[in-house]
Amino acid sequence: MRVEIWGDVVCPWCYIGTARFDKALAGFAHRDQVEVIHRSFELDPARDKTHVEPVHKMLADKFGPQGPGMDRQVATTAAREGLAYRTDRQVGSTLDAHRLLHLAKAHGRQHQLLNLLFEANFAQARTIFTSDALLGLAQAAELDADEARRVLDDPDAYLDAVRADEQQAARLGAPGVPFFVIDQRYALSGGQPTEAFAQALHTAWTQRPPAQTASAGAVCGPDGACAVPPSEP
Amino acid sequence: MRVEIWGDVVCPWCYIGTARFDKALAGFAHRDQVEVIHRSFELDPARDKTHVEPVHKMLADKFGPQGPGMDRQVATTAAREGLAYRTDRQVGSTLDAHRLLHLAKAHGRQHQLLNLLFEANFAQARTIFTSDALLGLAQAAELDADEARRVLDDPDAYLDAVRADEQQAARLGAPGVPFFVIDQRYALSGGQPTEAFAQALHTAWTQRPPAQTASAGAVCGPDGACAVPPSEP
Repeated sequence: MRVEIWGDVVCPWCYIGTARFDKALAGFAHRDQVEVIHRSFELDPARDKTHVEPVHKMLADKFGPQGPGMDRQVATTAAREGLAYRTDRQVGSTLDAHRLLHLAKAHGRQHQLLNLLFEANFAQARTIFTSDALLGLAQAAELDADEARRVLDDPDAYLDAVRADEQQAARLGAPGVPFFVIDQRYALSGGQPTEAFAQALHTAWTQRPPAQTASAGAVCGPDGACAVPPSEP
Repeated sequence: MRVEIWGDVVCPWCYIGTARFDKALAGFAHRDQVEVIHRSFELDPARDKTHVEPVHKMLADKFGPQGPGMDRQVATTAAREGLAYRTDRQVGSTLDAHRLLHLAKAHGRQHQLLNLLFEANFAQARTIFTSDALLGLAQAAELDADEARRVLDDPDAYLDAVRADEQQAARLGAPGVPFFVIDQRYALSGGQPTEAFAQALHTAWTQRPPAQTASAGAVCGPDGACAVPPSEP
């Protein structure tokens, strides 16, 4: 089974929702047969790379006095979930973090890097908006430092992959993030309770259609044999 | 809809089967909504990187006199399909080609690179077993030359991705390649006739289960708003 999770590394409900999903998955009997893929979604794709500011300043500029209040309410929810949540964190462009998450995916280290990004941003209010900070997290996630630096230095590296993820979210009609899709069939929008994720995993598992294999055509076997079968004229 | 195709760049039935699938896809009404992913499968994963030899020598060593005869029969099938097919081509390790195909995938150029690899190997009997040859093909597929060279020079680059593909093929019980899986549900083994692929695309499309979206939980919207919904305690 495959679960795709669209989210942003500065998105509070992604931080909380992903933690809840991880809990549900840890309790799922068939977790070894579940592949989780994190997909890119920038909450603010127009943000300039150099534009980093306190998140509460951004919220106040955008939504007035109730902006920071909204974040303090989310902090209360995070605390109930057992998650450290600093309201004095910064916000900036997350494009480089998403490009790096695609590199991590190619090396099977995506989950590790995402958790380190969440931890640095939300739990520690450390910047994740400079190449140096991202490089440090990449190394902590056991990625090769040289390769990570090359990706960070080349603005085109994995840019197509980020854009492809974002276009797919738009096609699927994701109203925001986090957005969870199980086996391309069951979509869950938002940071739902752990029980809702557990239920969705169970439902998707029990209702998955049986795989059908068509009668075999001509194959090359692992032994290198590529015979012409009778079915070929 | 997503079609995953496991294959090797030196696998004759992959060359023929992929061409047949491409024909079926070109005639499929919903082709714009089909994503095709080529997945790695080495026919000879134990082959040393420096071990390159005429394919008919390898076939004769492995299967005796009927080995090269098998390949001449495949050549007849390829010709019927309108595909150039040289029996004087070489065979070697395809690991680097697969690693490069993963780089191409990250840049949306996988289909182009695969076709260039098939063309060079089967239609022109040109080597695809040296870094220089692969670099030339990468550039023809419009990949960045520096990035391609870095991948070719680093034996670990995308190695995990190749191994993950191969492990998945084993889990799915692929008897050989090519092996086609539509939406993780319909598997087609081998280079089946174009009509079989057309039928499978049609069946998978009409029988695809409706997507279900659960009631929305807390999301952060593209406007940056992350309000706490009434559903949160």
